[in-house]
Amino acid sequence: MSAAQSAPLALSLGDPAGIGPELIVEAWARRNTEALPPFLAVGSARLLRQAAEARGLAVQVVAIDNPGDAASAFGDALPVLHGDEEADYAPGTPTEAGARLAMASLQIATRLTVEGQCSALVTGPIAKSELAKVGFIFPGQTEFVADACGIAAEDAVMMLAGPQLRTVPLTVHCALAEVPGRITIDLICRRARIVHAAMQRDFGLATPRIAICGLNPHAGESGRMGREEIETIAPAIARLQSEGIGATGPHPADSLFAPHARDGYDVAIAMYHDQALVPIKALDFDSGVNMTLGLPIIRTSPDHGTAFAIAGQRLAHAGATLAAIRMAGETAVWRAKAAA
Amino acid sequence: MSAAQSAPLALSLGDPAGIGPELIVEAWARRNTEALPPFLAVGSARLLRQAAEARGLAVQVVAIDNPGDAASAFGDALPVLHGDEEADYAPGTPTEAGARLAMASLQIATRLTVEGQCSALVTGPIAKSELAKVGFIFPGQTEFVADACGIAAEDAVMMLAGPQLRTVPLTVHCALAEVPGRITIDLICRRARIVHAAMQRDFGLATPRIAICGLNPHAGESGRMGREEIETIAPAIARLQSEGIGATGPHPADSLFAPHARDGYDVAIAMYHDQALVPIKALDFDSGVNMTLGLPIIRTSPDHGTAFAIAGQRLAHAGATLAAIRMAGETAVWRAKAAA
Repeated sequence: MSAAQSAPLALSLGDPAGIGPELIVEAWARRNTEALPPFLAVGSARLLRQAAEARGLAVQVVAIDNPGDAASAFGDALPVLHGDEEADYAPGTPTEAGARLAMASLQIATRLTVEGQCSALVTGPIAKSELAKVGFIFPGQTEFVADACGIAAEDAVMMLAGPQLRTVPLTVHCALAEVPGRITIDLICRRARIVHAAMQRDFGLATPRIAICGLNPHAGESGRMGREEIETIAPAIARLQSEGIGATGPHPADSLFAPHARDGYDVAIAMYHDQALVPIKALDFDSGVNMTLGLPIIRTSPDHGTAFAIAGQRLAHAGATLAAIRMAGETAVWRAKAAA
Repeated sequence: MSAAQSAPLALSLGDPAGIGPELIVEAWARRNTEALPPFLAVGSARLLRQAAEARGLAVQVVAIDNPGDAASAFGDALPVLHGDEEADYAPGTPTEAGARLAMASLQIATRLTVEGQCSALVTGPIAKSELAKVGFIFPGQTEFVADACGIAAEDAVMMLAGPQLRTVPLTVHCALAEVPGRITIDLICRRARIVHAAMQRDFGLATPRIAICGLNPHAGESGRMGREEIETIAPAIARLQSEGIGATGPHPADSLFAPHARDGYDVAIAMYHDQALVPIKALDFDSGVNMTLGLPIIRTSPDHGTAFAIAGQRLAHAGATLAAIRMAGETAVWRAKAAA
């Protein structure tokens, strides 16, 4: 087993008033039945003990001094780095102290992964507005992680993945009216190349099949409803194909996510946010993973928010956290194989 | 039992070179196991016999002279009105003669339903370009049916329905770039009122719950990504609520179609084609029904095309046709109850 494979995953807490902490302790409690790889949490051992109690789980929590101690501790207790932080669990009520803890947890977990002391980063959910109050200057965790890796934010590509589907939105957080103007041949090609490389390196697919959506209904029906397919998307696909990338399309989005169609590709590139997220959440709501492609490190995240309203009430579903941990671990194995 | 209830459904053939005929004979063959209401087909008895043979089904086909004979014949044979048409089954190859048969079948089936001799209309799939060649002047069957009913085309509202979800796209066949400009308070209110009335009359829901989607990612996040939610969609919802209509939203579309969210409404109004059709086809691809709301008659259709490429090869899935027949029959029962 390589060093990278045996190194633990690093889990950041997320906002401690959200559902992040209870899902970390639940994941640890289910480590054997879910066959999860060893991980450590970065944050407060006291807070995680209290979160376990609130969740009704018998979870041992142990503070460790360095990541190398995590794997041996993992069988008997949840290992927590910087576990001496004296924070108390107060679910549902975000505070500045909590935001500082969330930020520190993210920063340390990212650093450990960038340095190779941890094999992958799994980030818990934060509230951007809370973190902004304590000096976090990034629009989101993805941009922070990209910056820590020295990668331009536009080359850190968000992929949503569930058991039935993987999608990548080409444009993300912009008004729908701005979408047509943002789609260019260069943008499609740049992102698709990153997706292609990630499918090979991180998912063990020798010849990834990338389905590219149209923008308009029925992919424009030969120009009758919009010309972006003819002028932008099809030329981008032709360029990608000439580079040996297995891109197809432009596909009408409404039929691309149907069961039989899903068998025909490994990942779909959608033109905008809802085109990618509607099918993922309709099909895989409780187990969707947000993975950042194009980074030197592995980074996954459960595809949900802090859910302050239900935190600490034993209502939060752990499926996405389990899936994010599993995908991070599997990707670490693929990268170790590729590097061997 | 009222006259409307005991009248048969009228099924139009669709293009005879497509998958329409084989799905009609299959539906008849499964009438008992699927508990389908009595229906008649309008078209050629010879062609339907040949379609049954190609499908490998033992189906008796009987030509009848008037719709009143359908119910008593239905147990033993598929009743066909105007069954003396001497057409031959030639799946996969659309012809002008076939297009004329499809048009006549649609016209007669519609007239029978408008006159009340049939209780509902179930239209088979046509190819618009083929029908245009023989003088069909409408963009699609929905517009033809609306015209035959004396209803303006914009008040004939397309609803997609599957076992798990019902959606109505506010805009349909236009480029995505045109969508933001087409969404107005009046359009939302006008369509939502039609949807509300149809849910009451046709689905027996006393207080229908109508979820209305946002246009932008996360429904705009308080105006950070587009202002249509603030300026158009929310005011429309407020107006509808003041009229006593149970409209909610604007909801972020990506989470609205997740399993738990779907329990919270009876029908979702989407802002554009793919926002409505992506979740329906991802969840219910083989059993989606296209129903036209706002008409004096009941009209449903399987939500798929002619599929010339697989016609006559025993590959076409009958689920959507069965669902369209079942929904038409159930709606006829609700209307009869409402009228009683």
